[in-house]
Amino acid sequence: MTVFTKQLKFTTKGEEDIVNVTSSIAETVSKSKCTNGTVTVFATGSTGSLTTLEYETGLLQDFSTILARIAPKNIVYEHNKKWHDGNGHSHIRASILGPSITIPVINNQLTLGRWQQIVFIEHDVRSRTRTLIIQIIGESD
Amino acid sequence: MTVFTKQLKFTTKGEEDIVNVTSSIAETVSKSKCTNGTVTVFATGSTGSLTTLEYETGLLQDFSTILARIAPKNIVYEHNKKWHDGNGHSHIRASILGPSITIPVINNQLTLGRWQQIVFIEHDVRSRTRTLIIQIIGESD
Amino acid sequence: MTVFTKQLKFTTKGEEDIVNVTSSIAETVSKSKCTNGTVTVFATGSTGSLTTLEYETGLLQDFSTILARIAPKNIVYEHNKKWHDGNGHSHIRASILGPSITIPVINNQLTLGRWQQIVFIEHDVRSRTRTLIIQIIGESD
Repeated sequence: MTVFTKQLKFTTKGEEDIVNVTSSIAETVSKSKCTNGTVTVFATGSTGSLTTLEYETGLLQDFSTILARIAPKNIVYEHNKKWHDGNGHSHIRASILGPSITIPVINNQLTLGRWQQIVFIEHDVRSRTRTLIIQIIGESD
Repeated sequence: MTVFTKQLKFTTKGEEDIVNVTSSIAETVSKSKCTNGTVTVFATGSTGSLTTLEYETGLLQDFSTILARIAPKNIVYEHNKKWHDGNGHSHIRASILGPSITIPVINNQLTLGRWQQIVFIEHDVRSRTRTLIIQIIGESD
Repeated sequence: MTVFTKQLKFTTKGEEDIVNVTSSIAETVSKSKCTNGTVTVFATGSTGSLTTLEYETGLLQDFSTILARIAPKNIVYEHNKKWHDGNGHSHIRASILGPSITIPVINNQLTLGRWQQIVFIEHDVRSRTRTLIIQIIGESD
């Protein structure tokens, strides 16, 4: 059993940029030589989140629509009154979706469904440089 | 430390079928002979999700009510305009709830609360055959 | 590779009490002497949840506002009609946010962002004594 850790850095375009990180994570799993185990991906910071999604342009737009229903921008946020950074809704959306995802690895492959991609969702109101921690724990040959 | 993996297959009745998978997962933990470690359960596919819930008929109905508030069926989804499969709301609901759950194991037992059950939620608009990956990492005697 | 487990008990003030558990978890990681691995934190029970959040008073209020939008108290819950405990909304909120979080550990440190704290959210309508399972799997020197 071994632990393999990699940091992935990228810059987002700002609010509601949904970044497909599947190939980076699959590549890290490949490099780890882990045969069976789990990969945990964690988004550092409090205004981004991770989940899985079929990555097609229709759903990317629909995701924005639903996030705006859950935590709209145009309501009063105490956070904004206090800090004047206009991202109260970003914090709440990130906490509801959550910062981490754990996916099993079998035979050095992610066990995703055919149309299931791992995505980072930028909730902040401006472009950000993001760091994801990719950590694999498992057996190797 | 060892890794133990099992696939669990079952067929859902379609939208908002909430399947109690607790006993299957407890049985897999038992078979793994893992004393202390974690079990990760992952739903392959992009229209199903996993969480915990007190499994009683009142809450199963309430869950449908609230999912319909979060991502209603009767609004416009770009996904549906493009793919005509009518499951835009299913994809979004699945991504918000998330495809995985990780639960500690102590003395070969899941550390669930008394009324806390592990459930798979079918969000898709039709009956589906689903595969869950159950993976246990931990110590055995 | 070893597994290190600790239970954390505390009493909440009731609904929407958001408890910052970051220092307790960091301390457990320190005691585990795990250099690289993952910590899983799991909330036993079906009316509490775990996520990360910038822990400042504005966001704590905003979180209540948004939870009341997602699953309001003043709508009909079948759970309440059946059990008369008035916490139908608590169960649903807990299931949507989820009972577990997994965070990578590097060099015996949690990989949280600067303002990112681990929080337990009490959704139940009364003060509760809560148990979190903190479990670390990883390498030590």
